Amino acid sequence: MMIFSRGFYRISRNLRSSLNGCRGFLFLEDQKREFRLTHNFNLLTDSTEKVLSGEVIFKDLPAFYSSRHQIHNQSSSIVEEQDPFSLVADELSLLANRLRSMVIAEVPKLALAAEYFFKMGVEGKRFRPTVLLLMSTALNLPIPELLPPDELGGTLTTELRSRQQCIAEITEMIHVASLLHDDVLDDAETRRGIHSLNSVMGNKLAVLAGDFLLSRACVALASLKNTEVVSLLATVVEHLVTGETMQMTSTSEKRCSMEYYMQKTYYKTASLISNSCKAIALLAGQTAEVATLAFEYGRNLGLAFQLIDDVLDFTGTSASLGKGSLSDIRHGIVTAPILFAMEEFPQLRAVVDRGFDDPANVDLALEYLAKSRGIQRTRELAMKHANLAAAAIDSLPENDDEEVRKSRRALVDLTHIVITRNK
Amino acid sequence: MMIFSRGFYRISRNLRSSLNGCRGFLFLEDQKREFRLTHNFNLLTDSTEKVLSGEVIFKDLPAFYSSRHQIHNQSSSIVEEQDPFSLVADELSLLANRLRSMVIAEVPKLALAAEYFFKMGVEGKRFRPTVLLLMSTALNLPIPELLPPDELGGTLTTELRSRQQCIAEITEMIHVASLLHDDVLDDAETRRGIHSLNSVMGNKLAVLAGDFLLSRACVALASLKNTEVVSLLATVVEHLVTGETMQMTSTSEKRCSMEYYMQKTYYKTASLISNSCKAIALLAGQTAEVATLAFEYGRNLGLAFQLIDDVLDFTGTSASLGKGSLSDIRHGIVTAPILFAMEEFPQLRAVVDRGFDDPANVDLALEYLAKSRGIQRTRELAMKHANLAAAAIDSLPENDDEEVRKSRRALVDLTHIVITRNK
Repeated sequence: MMIFSRGFYRISRNLRSSLNGCRGFLFLEDQKREFRLTHNFNLLTDSTEKVLSGEVIFKDLPAFYSSRHQIHNQSSSIVEEQDPFSLVADELSLLANRLRSMVIAEVPKLALAAEYFFKMGVEGKRFRPTVLLLMSTALNLPIPELLPPDELGGTLTTELRSRQQCIAEITEMIHVASLLHDDVLDDAETRRGIHSLNSVMGNKLAVLAGDFLLSRACVALASLKNTEVVSLLATVVEHLVTGETMQMTSTSEKRCSMEYYMQKTYYKTASLISNSCKAIALLAGQTAEVATLAFEYGRNLGLAFQLIDDVLDFTGTSASLGKGSLSDIRHGIVTAPILFAMEEFPQLRAVVDRGFDDPANVDLALEYLAKSRGIQRTRELAMKHANLAAAAIDSLPENDDEEVRKSRRALVDLTHIVITRNK
Repeated sequence: MMIFSRGFYRISRNLRSSLNGCRGFLFLEDQKREFRLTHNFNLLTDSTEKVLSGEVIFKDLPAFYSSRHQIHNQSSSIVEEQDPFSLVADELSLLANRLRSMVIAEVPKLALAAEYFFKMGVEGKRFRPTVLLLMSTALNLPIPELLPPDELGGTLTTELRSRQQCIAEITEMIHVASLLHDDVLDDAETRRGIHSLNSVMGNKLAVLAGDFLLSRACVALASLKNTEVVSLLATVVEHLVTGETMQMTSTSEKRCSMEYYMQKTYYKTASLISNSCKAIALLAGQTAEVATLAFEYGRNLGLAFQLIDDVLDFTGTSASLGKGSLSDIRHGIVTAPILFAMEEFPQLRAVVDRGFDDPANVDLALEYLAKSRGIQRTRELAMKHANLAAAAIDSLPENDDEEVRKSRRALVDLTHIVITRNK
């Protein structure tokens, strides 16, 4: 695994040098990593700032894309060998059971409502808990200059693990709460292929069930007795709200700004996973540097995830335009593919400004998108963030423990899965 | 003041002995108070359990009511002398300004929405912050066996006060958030005489603004770095949700149960003020006994407040039936006056079971209510809880500090104001 990992970075480095003028695409050099941790992190941040400002990073991407794609093919057999989800499967079902029992309140109707999204078959891949449990193992390092490895007794480790599991549960509760409230907001009739709770049971219950989950999450958070962690996750709730509000903003300038779109995407999607990754590190007593790397992994993985989501809304599983649900554009939400298309065809902006209540306008926008490199450039941007996420894991202090290495490998594999998924 | 207070309890004790078989109506005997604190508290709790189970307490209440009313008249001049609200007026406006600045988020639209309920003229009497600031001073006692009075330095006191102010702010944010979400739920078109936020700006923004305030409350809570306090207030949010859900429950048995009604009223109204009163005590490092008395004050005051609210929904300011907004009954919400009337006229239950979509049914219920002692018995129950609240204050460890005594007096005065208000 480690050999592949090193090889992966060597290939990346070679790729980088072949990409003339490719600022922002930075992989850390293995030999200097240990001494340049903080500095490298600054570079990661800088590069992402550039992405956030909508600057184009890859001048010669088709070539890069195909090379990178080979890496993906190379890695896919490894992905099968240690499927990130199977690595924590037992713990995940334990966690799912605990979540289910946690939402059984005194008021059965409410429990039913809250459980609605947790029930089997609707839970999806349990993406967030998987990341957080893997991160827990990946950071299972001796706490520097505080506790030598031998003093990390079994009880202490078990207690730490159950606290980290609690973060995974809280994260899922916040996520489901935001889905419930989003469903009310968007008046969405379906979510994940099933009827949304509010169309089945009414807005009233969906708002209450979301509030209920948020309050349970707060109670669980308080039980961790770590006020920094409480702060982190309270801020996440604020970000989810801010993101949703930004999406509602109707000024043309903001709707057509890539920077605004990326900021909104961070708030709506990446803040939860990045801050909970950081919480995992803080509970483990890790250094600020390690906590920041955990945060950066989550942030870049979350951004990559959402960018691919935005592509799939246009393409669906078939990879051809117009086969997706087109739910974003039909709700007037402008995402990365359209924003990139607009850079090539400025006349698309007038179409966007007219809004998408008229289906003819949707068709017109799709025509421009088909002519443009919008979908491709969105995939490239997703890939860029996936690579930054992988680089954050590779920048963690070295560790020879087999379990730690397996989990780190799985976290890197997840970055591939996120950008190659087609549903 | 203290003379009046003693006199008040002496009168109460005399009244009690004149009320044959009046279980549950217990005032603490001054001379034994100090030694029987815990025991007395159990008595308070027991008596309230009986109230919660809907048992009628006063067998001869009209006589008591008029005696009690004289006490109120007697106290009204004192109330004017030290209006509870004016006692903390400066601090309240400081707090209001801080609340306003706290809701100014990055997204102006959201700040506007959240500020909607805070703005001047809509804030009402700032009932909750007033109680909490008065409670802060009322509990400003030397921490028993931990710090002698002289070690309570100025800085420590100031810091404690600003932490207690923070509780008052958080409480108001949670309260406003619940109003915003309730407005969505009930599809209420007006609230406090102004158009509700959701009818002006849509459900979407009302849900988001509520979520935003909740997340700000969480962040502020976390900054207090007291996990017990975080737990208390997280539980409050859960109670608010549970109460709202209980109100939605449509089974006839539950809608017609006084016990169910009182439990719901605790969750919806009294939990917030009781638990935040307890938080004030915990931050001050008070004993469990004092914290419980603070909690009991808030709980009984909250219950009294809501019972009078339920009366005013029928009577309005005019004290005659049908002059209120009748919004509860028109929304199918059955409150204490109707429940008491039902005990006298069991045939009213069939009317309730038919629901109140038909205005003729509302009129029929009002006819039964007018014939019954429903309004009077609801007022009596409110008075009972107001007295229990006052008794909790009087059970606090004695203190000769003038400020402490003034604040305790004001808290007792508030229990009178709550039951004598007509709006």
